[in-house]
Amino acid sequence: MKYKIAVIKGDGIGPEIVDEAIKVLKKMGEKYNHNFEFTEVLAGGIAIDKTGKNLPEETLQVCKESDAVILGAVGGPKWDSLPGNERPEKALLALRKELNLYSNIRPAVMFDILKDTCPLKPEIVEGGMDIVIVRELTGGIYFGKKFTEGNYACDCMEYSKYEIERIAHQAFKIAQSRNKHVTSVDKANVLETSRLWRKTVEEVAKDYPDVKLNHLYVDNAAMQLVVNPKQFDVIVTENMFGDILSDEASMITGSIGLLPSASLGDNNFGMYEPIHGSAPDIAGQGKANPIATILSISMMLKYTFGLQSESDCIENAVKKTLSDGHRTADIARKGEKIITTVEMGNIIVESI
Amino acid sequence: MKYKIAVIKGDGIGPEIVDEAIKVLKKMGEKYNHNFEFTEVLAGGIAIDKTGKNLPEETLQVCKESDAVILGAVGGPKWDSLPGNERPEKALLALRKELNLYSNIRPAVMFDILKDTCPLKPEIVEGGMDIVIVRELTGGIYFGKKFTEGNYACDCMEYSKYEIERIAHQAFKIAQSRNKHVTSVDKANVLETSRLWRKTVEEVAKDYPDVKLNHLYVDNAAMQLVVNPKQFDVIVTENMFGDILSDEASMITGSIGLLPSASLGDNNFGMYEPIHGSAPDIAGQGKANPIATILSISMMLKYTFGLQSESDCIENAVKKTLSDGHRTADIARKGEKIITTVEMGNIIVESI
Ligand SMILES: CC(C)[C@H](C(=O)O)[C@@H](O)C(=O)O
Ligand SMILES: CC(C)[C@H](C(=O)O)[C@@H](O)C(=O)O
Repeated sequence: MKYKIAVIKGDGIGPEIVDEAIKVLKKMGEKYNHNFEFTEVLAGGIAIDKTGKNLPEETLQVCKESDAVILGAVGGPKWDSLPGNERPEKALLALRKELNLYSNIRPAVMFDILKDTCPLKPEIVEGGMDIVIVRELTGGIYFGKKFTEGNYACDCMEYSKYEIERIAHQAFKIAQSRNKHVTSVDKANVLETSRLWRKTVEEVAKDYPDVKLNHLYVDNAAMQLVVNPKQFDVIVTENMFGDILSDEASMITGSIGLLPSASLGDNNFGMYEPIHGSAPDIAGQGKANPIATILSISMMLKYTFGLQSESDCIENAVKKTLSDGHRTADIARKGEKIITTVEMGNIIVESI
Repeated sequence: MKYKIAVIKGDGIGPEIVDEAIKVLKKMGEKYNHNFEFTEVLAGGIAIDKTGKNLPEETLQVCKESDAVILGAVGGPKWDSLPGNERPEKALLALRKELNLYSNIRPAVMFDILKDTCPLKPEIVEGGMDIVIVRELTGGIYFGKKFTEGNYACDCMEYSKYEIERIAHQAFKIAQSRNKHVTSVDKANVLETSRLWRKTVEEVAKDYPDVKLNHLYVDNAAMQLVVNPKQFDVIVTENMFGDILSDEASMITGSIGLLPSASLGDNNFGMYEPIHGSAPDIAGQGKANPIATILSISMMLKYTFGLQSESDCIENAVKKTLSDGHRTADIARKGEKIITTVEMGNIIVESI
């Protein structure tokens, strides 16, 4: 079988980390006899520089004709003064919308070897932290009507029931394969969209009697993540709340440099990218950690291609590499030997 | 001079904690020869039970004719199934809007005696944490157009320039009396309202050349509060971001039971309330900590009445009481003697 993958390296450290991820995937192809076919396309700042557009038509076309997309990161100070629609981030939003990637899955896991970098006290995260945040990604205030008129501006948070249903199903299904607990986060004491959200999630919950459901207001969720993150299994929430809470959660793990993400549409189509950004300050220096991107590849094998043991194989290779003590600069403690992006990639490839 | 104060005890622990705050205020009146006049009015769940309305017309009238309002807390499970407009929280929102309380000031301070309850590692909060969050309180998605139509719902985040200007001025003025640093939080890479916000804050900043200004996206701010809260002095942000970030920040201090807040309008009019909620689970048991409400009184003396030394006097009495080791249940460590709400009030009154 042939797997068609669109590759968007993007800006900053994007190219370096994606190169390592592709090396890993090629190795997987050899080992398991899969045919991964890569097509590189442009998006973000580099696309602006080379074509004048943050998301060239060809990029969208190639992504649509692929089975999955790998994305490094987009954006950087160079393009920060451009107007809203022309910025690199806009390409990311357009990709999500055009590819109908409505379901963003962000594991917030504390890696044991990074326990020390967790900002919370040890007693709070004792025994580890393992949350999956399921964020609605193509609705809400990101894509609702918006305009500025003189001294007035407006952004509409809009939701239709079917948008809430499909993301809720996703969350409950994921919970079924885990600890069977979904926490739905909204602001139902203030927002109409949240009241529709809560009602719809409760309806969907009836299809999953084995999964426990509770609701939290978003302000309370932001607090609970700090004082008692272990209460969570799967968190499902709308686009902007998901943006805020998933970043807070990933930071709380202390492992943000290692965290992957998947953005899924229908029929298992998906875009895979690290949680961290383009880190322009260290771009091109071989300092970036490719692990979050490599683990994104592992998510791709599982979610889009259904290759569970291949996915596990990458995860195990990463775990082994880490427990053997190999460290890029971001995760090294004082005195530990630091290796480069490429060296990290090579070592992971070797342990596959 | 006579100071007219409307008193809304509200629900849950509201009545108990407000009673102690009033005791403190009466003592202040005696000591400094001020005439504080109190008028008790209903709002929230208790108002629903007694009058059928969460915010009776009389309450609004009395508040408007007063110089300041003291509020305990509103809400509880008893009224949670009521429709949006009839809920206790709606009374709070209506009070904010009707009294034009556009500027919500929430100190997030780590109390030295509560250092141990801070969820962050000691090295992150070493030397203390002292942030003021200035939240816009009468605009944005809380009060924009909203509706549900069948399977579709919509909430509009709306801002006009003058709304941003007045809250920005407030933030810069507060920063001038502190460490001269304002962090403005928005989501300007996605929202039109945020772009208007950022532009306006930058314009207002020109009037305060002695204050440093920086901008953060809300998702990044949620992360920075966890990993490096000491970078902040004054944070200014729109209504919903302020809701989320101020709760996160207050939880991070570990001192949420002690934190007061002020909601200010024009001409120093203000409503004062503790950050914590109505805590229905411990209501009527004498377990509640009145300190956050008593410190809210201290904010009232400062912000509305301009009585700086009276305000300091309350703050010092609270500090002395705490350093003498008096503890309500919420702040007691294992083995420490626990006193009641009323006892805590009495001790603070005595040390005034
Ligand atoms: C870059 C930005 C538009 C984006 C978002 O807000 O969704 C990012 O923060 C993310 O979470 O992927
Ligand atoms: C009760 C609720 C409507 C309110 C808000 O969201 O503003 C509360 O969370 C607060 O922060 O005062």
